[in-house]
Amino acid sequence: MPAPTPSALDELVASLPEGVVITDPVRTDKYRFDRAADPDAGTPAAVVRAESTGQVQTALRWASEHRVAVVPRGAGTGLSGGSTAVSGGIVLSTERMRDIRVDRPGRVAVVQPGLLNAEVKQAVAECGLWYPPDPSSFEICSIGGNIATNAGGLCCVKYGVTTDYVLALEVVLPDGRALRLGGARLKDCAGLSLTKLFVGSEGTLGIVTEATLRLMPPQSPPRTVVAGFADTRAATGAVVAITAGLRPSMLEYLDRTTVNAVEDHLRMGLDRSAAALLVAQTDAEGSTADRELAAIVEACQRHGATEVLATDDPAEGEAFTVARRQAIPALEKKGKLLLEDVGVGVAALPALVAGIEQIAAAREVTIALIAHAGDGNTHPLIVFDPADSEATARAGLAFGEVMDLAIALDGTITGEHGVGRLKQPWLATQLGEDVIDLSRRIKAAIDPLGIMNPGAVL
Amino acid sequence: MPAPTPSALDELVASLPEGVVITDPVRTDKYRFDRAADPDAGTPAAVVRAESTGQVQTALRWASEHRVAVVPRGAGTGLSGGSTAVSGGIVLSTERMRDIRVDRPGRVAVVQPGLLNAEVKQAVAECGLWYPPDPSSFEICSIGGNIATNAGGLCCVKYGVTTDYVLALEVVLPDGRALRLGGARLKDCAGLSLTKLFVGSEGTLGIVTEATLRLMPPQSPPRTVVAGFADTRAATGAVVAITAGLRPSMLEYLDRTTVNAVEDHLRMGLDRSAAALLVAQTDAEGSTADRELAAIVEACQRHGATEVLATDDPAEGEAFTVARRQAIPALEKKGKLLLEDVGVGVAALPALVAGIEQIAAAREVTIALIAHAGDGNTHPLIVFDPADSEATARAGLAFGEVMDLAIALDGTITGEHGVGRLKQPWLATQLGEDVIDLSRRIKAAIDPLGIMNPGAVL
Repeated sequence: MPAPTPSALDELVASLPEGVVITDPVRTDKYRFDRAADPDAGTPAAVVRAESTGQVQTALRWASEHRVAVVPRGAGTGLSGGSTAVSGGIVLSTERMRDIRVDRPGRVAVVQPGLLNAEVKQAVAECGLWYPPDPSSFEICSIGGNIATNAGGLCCVKYGVTTDYVLALEVVLPDGRALRLGGARLKDCAGLSLTKLFVGSEGTLGIVTEATLRLMPPQSPPRTVVAGFADTRAATGAVVAITAGLRPSMLEYLDRTTVNAVEDHLRMGLDRSAAALLVAQTDAEGSTADRELAAIVEACQRHGATEVLATDDPAEGEAFTVARRQAIPALEKKGKLLLEDVGVGVAALPALVAGIEQIAAAREVTIALIAHAGDGNTHPLIVFDPADSEATARAGLAFGEVMDLAIALDGTITGEHGVGRLKQPWLATQLGEDVIDLSRRIKAAIDPLGIMNPGAVL
Repeated sequence: MPAPTPSALDELVASLPEGVVITDPVRTDKYRFDRAADPDAGTPAAVVRAESTGQVQTALRWASEHRVAVVPRGAGTGLSGGSTAVSGGIVLSTERMRDIRVDRPGRVAVVQPGLLNAEVKQAVAECGLWYPPDPSSFEICSIGGNIATNAGGLCCVKYGVTTDYVLALEVVLPDGRALRLGGARLKDCAGLSLTKLFVGSEGTLGIVTEATLRLMPPQSPPRTVVAGFADTRAATGAVVAITAGLRPSMLEYLDRTTVNAVEDHLRMGLDRSAAALLVAQTDAEGSTADRELAAIVEACQRHGATEVLATDDPAEGEAFTVARRQAIPALEKKGKLLLEDVGVGVAALPALVAGIEQIAAAREVTIALIAHAGDGNTHPLIVFDPADSEATARAGLAFGEVMDLAIALDGTITGEHGVGRLKQPWLATQLGEDVIDLSRRIKAAIDPLGIMNPGAVL
């Protein structure tokens, strides 16, 4: 797609209030990359930091008229390159759209996309309510980005993913029209499920400018089990046993490499010798919590846990959750990371983990493994020295092989991060050509000029 | 769309095993109507009772080649005319596709569309698992129809609707290609959310030939509160108060007309004098159940309930659930019914119920009201004498006015039954022309010949 002419760019700047459009390359540079840090990121012609739906409409009308590529961007914390800038295109940032209105009796929040997930959680908590989805990056990722990727998190094993909480959207189509999809009601089957189609569409269909989120009564203080295992198969076996019979509110897996990196980072006394740790929680109450906690402990012991700790102390439980959330920052200190997001049905988790270990051994690369184990969604993190070109090449091969393995196990190349540009080459292998063709037809029906996030997903 | 020529019809009959295609008008007659009993139902050229995905593909390839309309049909229990036959078209019935496979450790069931909802529930219960969605018609409606309409039920207030349980679909597109969408994994954001787009599409995009359903551990035995109110505003006020703070596993509303019809039908000793009854359940355990039950009782009393009964006896609770489920059959004895399915955000429930009462008074029609009150989804049932042409006309006017009211309250014309042909004239008022246009473009991208369920929804 060609870059806009200088006069077209002037027209964009003039059509929006001062400060909304940035064209200074020094200032636009930080909008080139998301956390995938794609070295091939393009140089945008401009960054539009919209303050309102109307401004998003103005920008998209202009982009349609001039056939300019639009890369939507929330907080820029995407891990799959979904917000990597395209040369000659514009970046449409929603970071300044930060309103929220909580409807307490209706148990919904109406939010703009630029709010951080943590800010949404905080605002609704102040009204005595709870917004469950909790990506590990919840303190730095935006709710708009969560909707664009159908983000998950730690509590999804019991409480579902972002799409389960989106009742309605306002979206701006590529031609600049603003549409309202869905509504603040729990049940609605009037017409096609367009709200659900836009959730997870990674900015390829339009731009979400407002969302109505379903809220829940607050979660009860969780009780926590931490179990160490001498081998990873025992740990994954325990995961399958736990999820077969109950619904923990969290069930996380950390392998030895991760545990050691976190211990180096936080010094909290984790067992460095364990092949894998499970951190499980139940947020049930009273006798139900007793029963679930006992069942989790029993499943861990039956599967050969070397050490099992159960605690009712929410602060102690939270420390282990923080340890889990710090896994990626801790591993980033050990080298460059290639971050995977493969998922399988939970019954296939042992095969996935074993297969990843085989890939690591065969390719002579370190693959640290953290996982939202209870829902089969894993994050193998390939750790390598970017100065070593041979190691970098082997890491790249392993990256693809892990996705191939997930597909072979009837799994997905991405459970919660999105396809973006980084995993786009593997999407057709997972979905098949007929599904890609159908997706392209739907994309063309909504974005006939192909200006929305070109190169991402499809 | 023109009817197929006799030779084209012969070709269809010859391309499928004996007995699959019915053309005898005596035998095809019962496939003309669903429970909406549209007097203007067409006469199909043939009924295809497919036994396999391959046979569905054969039929759709033929229909595409000859430009013949296809009306998909499950058990024929739809309430909105989504399966009303089209003259010259074919009815594609999935009633013979009845396989099920339960994957116990994976906690999923792979089902064909012709199984009844009750059969799915039963088969998974035998494996110690639970499929939550429970339309009142669960004993006679098919799982394929549930998916086509994104059906709800009584437990949705806590457990969500059909789309929340559909992990994967096999669909046959109008051109005869069979596609697999999604997979047996809890988290998956690879590509557009096509699975969710097909759920609730009422047969306008293709035909679901297999679904992978997420299952849950069994529900605990519920505890039940039944409360009578002297006026309906008190009852709806109690509903808003209950749902503001907790998540009941059921929260149903029956008005006086309904209570009296059910009492005439079942003679179970319901309070005929109450303006409205609420039937609420919690399936929490132990102290949580105690707390929730007490909160429900307290909310009812605070809102002026004249009588409140709480019971731990699951059999007694089930008797009230059966009473609720029998409401429509009981009311059918009182006259012809026009069945609505309007929904609003729960905070708007009092306004919706009061507005319906005003419409009933102004139009001098009886409107019985049952509701899945906890999620704001109501079923106003307009009861009239079809022999009285003036009453019939007034009922028709009230039918439209109730939908207009729901739309004015930012609600929906259909929470769980679907738009079908009956509510199609109101859809654009709810969604707006831009959303209708977007929906039509997506429909055209998937069904360019427009053969799938023409006249329904869009």
